[in-house]
Amino acid sequence: MTALARIFDFEILATEGAARTGHFHLPHGVVRTPAFMPVGTQATVKTLTPEEVEGLGAEIILGNTYHLFLRPGHEVVRELGGLHRFMNWKGPILTDSGGYQVFSLAEINEVREDGVVFQSHIDGSRHLFTPERVMEIERALGADVIMAFDQLPPGGAPREVALEAHERTLRWLVRCREHFARLEAMGEVPAQTLLPIIQGGVFPDLRRDSVRRILEIGEWDGVAIGGLSVGEPKPVMYEVLETLEPELPTAVPRYLMGVGYPDDLLEGIRRGVDLFDCVAPTRNGRNGTAWVEGEGQVNMKAGRHRADPGPLDPECDCYTCRTYTRAYIRHLIVAGEVLGLRLLSLHNLRFLVRLAERAREKIAAGTFDRWSEEWLARYRSARAADKGELV
Amino acid sequence: MTALARIFDFEILATEGAARTGHFHLPHGVVRTPAFMPVGTQATVKTLTPEEVEGLGAEIILGNTYHLFLRPGHEVVRELGGLHRFMNWKGPILTDSGGYQVFSLAEINEVREDGVVFQSHIDGSRHLFTPERVMEIERALGADVIMAFDQLPPGGAPREVALEAHERTLRWLVRCREHFARLEAMGEVPAQTLLPIIQGGVFPDLRRDSVRRILEIGEWDGVAIGGLSVGEPKPVMYEVLETLEPELPTAVPRYLMGVGYPDDLLEGIRRGVDLFDCVAPTRNGRNGTAWVEGEGQVNMKAGRHRADPGPLDPECDCYTCRTYTRAYIRHLIVAGEVLGLRLLSLHNLRFLVRLAERAREKIAAGTFDRWSEEWLARYRSARAADKGELV
Repeated sequence: MTALARIFDFEILATEGAARTGHFHLPHGVVRTPAFMPVGTQATVKTLTPEEVEGLGAEIILGNTYHLFLRPGHEVVRELGGLHRFMNWKGPILTDSGGYQVFSLAEINEVREDGVVFQSHIDGSRHLFTPERVMEIERALGADVIMAFDQLPPGGAPREVALEAHERTLRWLVRCREHFARLEAMGEVPAQTLLPIIQGGVFPDLRRDSVRRILEIGEWDGVAIGGLSVGEPKPVMYEVLETLEPELPTAVPRYLMGVGYPDDLLEGIRRGVDLFDCVAPTRNGRNGTAWVEGEGQVNMKAGRHRADPGPLDPECDCYTCRTYTRAYIRHLIVAGEVLGLRLLSLHNLRFLVRLAERAREKIAAGTFDRWSEEWLARYRSARAADKGELV
Repeated sequence: MTALARIFDFEILATEGAARTGHFHLPHGVVRTPAFMPVGTQATVKTLTPEEVEGLGAEIILGNTYHLFLRPGHEVVRELGGLHRFMNWKGPILTDSGGYQVFSLAEINEVREDGVVFQSHIDGSRHLFTPERVMEIERALGADVIMAFDQLPPGGAPREVALEAHERTLRWLVRCREHFARLEAMGEVPAQTLLPIIQGGVFPDLRRDSVRRILEIGEWDGVAIGGLSVGEPKPVMYEVLETLEPELPTAVPRYLMGVGYPDDLLEGIRRGVDLFDCVAPTRNGRNGTAWVEGEGQVNMKAGRHRADPGPLDPECDCYTCRTYTRAYIRHLIVAGEVLGLRLLSLHNLRFLVRLAERAREKIAAGTFDRWSEEWLARYRSARAADKGELV
């Protein structure tokens, strides 16, 4: 029963095959899963206010440790009362560990056993991230859920590189956990939980080994799957998820990091994933593209929308679709107006949040498998038609 | 009595010296004057939704004919139901005539007696604006108040140049009025009123001549003062206003085009102006500067705000000031986040709208003269201190 649930409990309400729907209890509120988590990289979900993000149905958002460490600095955030108060988001927050950004955005100077020396992508300043340091930063930010510091092998890395990153990630996980416990014992910050990240590239044995050894290290309130959606073909990602699914603990939520597009969301849920995040909805919005039910990905700059009096997506219930015509949205995008970026970001986020909402309903009703297959077929045929149009 | 007022009536509720407060009755609602009108150049008040603009107390907004003609095209706007429906703004709208933009933004190919041949600043395409053409475009846009097509002499133009522009503007005004009457007789669009623009540069005799001859041409529901705030020193602008004030009809609203900053707003009201517009609040917002009561113009990028837990302006009632710290706003601006531009644009607009609100209250109470003098002294000493800080 929800009323008896404790913080960090995960209650499973229904399952259908590998798919599950549940409640993840966090200090700042309950997250209904499967859930899509909008990304608030620099303490803001790009272009939107917290009220707008809440209004579109998001129940948890992400913050990026790497970015917030560089700007405005985690000490400033701590001084201002933590990330929740700093950005005025009242619901749960998850912070990543900066691992992904350090290995993709920053210039790496050195990967050592103690940590990574990197240069800021903003001003070239040099910094050292160790597991201990990252725990301190995430503690200062004060999110509900914080991620362990991991080493991300490059997409397409050969086995020996993936193996090295996998082994180091496990050694760093132990250090993260120990230091997190020390910091937790010191109090100060509201309750947080630390989640481990499963690495191992596209190698099934490494992935399985990662899960087993993570579970040996201790108990966790959730597990994350990292190192996917980094350039590998989608079927490869789905295979890794299928390899992992039977190995993962069922009693805690599973978070697939940095995924997804609409099809990835449903494919992930079908393979037992509970939490997702991705910058695509806001990034696509800023590029002028929108997901539309039955139409796939629509380029709103296209001339065909010039005088279109219809809504962006007739099946969508968001502010953008309830209020504006395609003609107006196209005009804003073509004219480079900020409101256009806002309207598309809002819609794209609502599209994914609503897709997760519907998945929850369908799983509860036992009709998810069939519904998601039909939805995916429709989406893919629209995407294919789209590509045909571009030729 | 308001209940008996007809559309385009201007009811004066109170006066104090030259300052007046009244109600301007327009097809889409009543505008309380003095009023600041936010500028929605490309059918959007930059970065904001119509609901946000309404929420900050704006009762009328501007659209720019030149920009909307080029993009998305007035025929598209007409097809979509006019500017109100196109952009979802339910209150009154005023469109300028494009005169200012043609002479400042576009590349002029030729100024002829029939009109101006210019090249688009967007794609270099050639167009001809005649008084008749502009009336047709503004009719298609469908604003409540539309402006006559005028020739704007360059700031600092010598007398003979100002004289030529002044004479041509008057000839064009006759053509605008005649063509507007023809179009009006054809119906279709909701009620509109056409306002004349007083030109004459900084030459008192030309300005007076402009007023007299405009009033000879016919009756108007308001008059506009153009060609100010184009680079001349502020005292020169105030002198022109003082020259004009006794010449202007008292029974209709007076609109000072393209003005102003906070001090210009109060100085204008003191000299009998009722309506103002200016891009400064949104442009400054996008540049990271904010007006703050008692502090003048504040650069939000400054390091001193880095960890400031206070609101942007403790005396302001806007969403930005009620919700966020200076530290957070500074972070957003420094990090280049769109939300920062939104928050400052919103605040700066509210600052001017509220200043006009307070002016209305003070005029009604008979305390405007003293209050505005004190306000201006405080603003100017803060601005002076500001400049000192920068040295």
